[in-house]
Amino acid sequence: MHPARFITLEGIDGAGKSSHLEFIRQWLQARDISAVFTREPGGTPLGEALRGLLLSVETEASLDTETLLMFAARQEHLDRVIRPALAAGQWVVSDRFTDATFAYQGGGRGVPDSRIAVLEQWVQQGLQPDLTLLFDVAPDVAAARMATHRTLDRFEREQAAFHARVRDAYLARATAPRFAVIDSGRDFDAIRADIASRLQRLVEQA
Amino acid sequence: MHPARFITLEGIDGAGKSSHLEFIRQWLQARDISAVFTREPGGTPLGEALRGLLLSVETEASLDTETLLMFAARQEHLDRVIRPALAAGQWVVSDRFTDATFAYQGGGRGVPDSRIAVLEQWVQQGLQPDLTLLFDVAPDVAAARMATHRTLDRFEREQAAFHARVRDAYLARATAPRFAVIDSGRDFDAIRADIASRLQRLVEQA
Ligand SMILES: Nc1ncnc2c1ncn2[C@@H]1O[C@H](COP(=O)(O)OP(=O)(O)OP(=O)(O)O)[C@@H](O)[C@H]1O
Ligand SMILES: Nc1ncnc2c1ncn2[C@@H]1O[C@H](COP(=O)(O)OP(=O)(O)OP(=O)(O)O)[C@@H](O)[C@H]1O
Ligand SMILES: [Mg+2]
Ligand SMILES: [Mg+2]
Repeated sequence: MHPARFITLEGIDGAGKSSHLEFIRQWLQARDISAVFTREPGGTPLGEALRGLLLSVETEASLDTETLLMFAARQEHLDRVIRPALAAGQWVVSDRFTDATFAYQGGGRGVPDSRIAVLEQWVQQGLQPDLTLLFDVAPDVAAARMATHRTLDRFEREQAAFHARVRDAYLARATAPRFAVIDSGRDFDAIRADIASRLQRLVEQA
Repeated sequence: MHPARFITLEGIDGAGKSSHLEFIRQWLQARDISAVFTREPGGTPLGEALRGLLLSVETEASLDTETLLMFAARQEHLDRVIRPALAAGQWVVSDRFTDATFAYQGGGRGVPDSRIAVLEQWVQQGLQPDLTLLFDVAPDVAAARMATHRTLDRFEREQAAFHARVRDAYLARATAPRFAVIDSGRDFDAIRADIASRLQRLVEQA
């Protein structure tokens, strides 16, 4: 029996987070680890409604309002999905979490880290991911990969300098032990080998 | 020239807040004081959308989520309406503000005051109303007044004990000097005389 673990996937748009969800799902399933897969913003009906609001080009929420809405969606996600699953012994894998707020609203848009940290504490009350896989890749590589596959949303249309600041903010946070920085400029097999070794380490930690 | 003032109206549902807005408007107009009238939750397009979400019976936001959404609407209200008006020298009169969160989510529903105070500080960064008119009336009187005029929303359908807790929470806050407690069990003329005297005092404070 493995104690429940909370894993988050982070990285700039197009870094490869979603691409590896299926691999992680199969890896856990092969070891009989029951897991819930979810994402932010969203992950609950209310969160999806707020996600729609935040991604729509029409929205003119101020930056501080946007930050509070992000944390409102996160609160709901924790109360309705993440904490109940962990309490039931299930692992939780979330495509983005609070590091994304530090990276996008903080590094990208200038909300001070200290203000984000107040809301982090209010909402999480000490809960942190056990493992954060940070998919790191140069913004131009990510942009080139995405351009061939789909239309871009508001955040994605922001200029290259913005994504460079987001990437730097992610990397600045990655000194905490829960982080594994994955070089996402490589091919899928190399990345999966890294992910598997970090998951294996997490399983072995009693 | 009168320095800009920020006035809030508070009290349980049906206490009489909205009934006196027109009197306040005329009182200020007669003295050539330019004023903006607004309300919470709401007061901005985003706030109105969130107000709809919060008042709808279907919504199942957790209490903490509801509290964060209230402050997100308030942040937008401050950024888009209240601070710009005050900066332009206009008085602002808001039908409800943060005391309502302490009264409803705090006293009524049990969110600790200390947690609400963290968000108050995050959003207001020290800004407080110059005058808060607290319309105080027994919950059964307010309920009887409302029942004859319109259908009740989710908050209003809550039981009498809830409104008694909300009233008590309002009164507990009213020790701060910015508060004027108005006995709203009396007739309109008596109440208006009280309001006029508090407004006069505010005008006279240089
Ligand atoms: N290592 C890789 N090599 C080649 N292509 C990749 C690699 N990783 C991801 N891609 C491609 O890049 C695109 C973006 O990947 P993906 O959708 O997984 O990114 P994401 O981090 O989830 O982005 P978003 O933040 O927008 O959800 C996809 O088309 C994907 O196939
Ligand atoms: N002093 C009063 N005497 C008699 N009736 C009153 C008095 N004050 C308010 N009412 C009546 O009580 C009802 C509720 O008043 P009002 O709508 O002003 O309350 P409110 O505090 O704005 O309520 P809500 O919180 O629901 O907006 C109205 O029908 C109003 O006419
Ligand atoms: Mg993705
Ligand atoms: Mg009213």
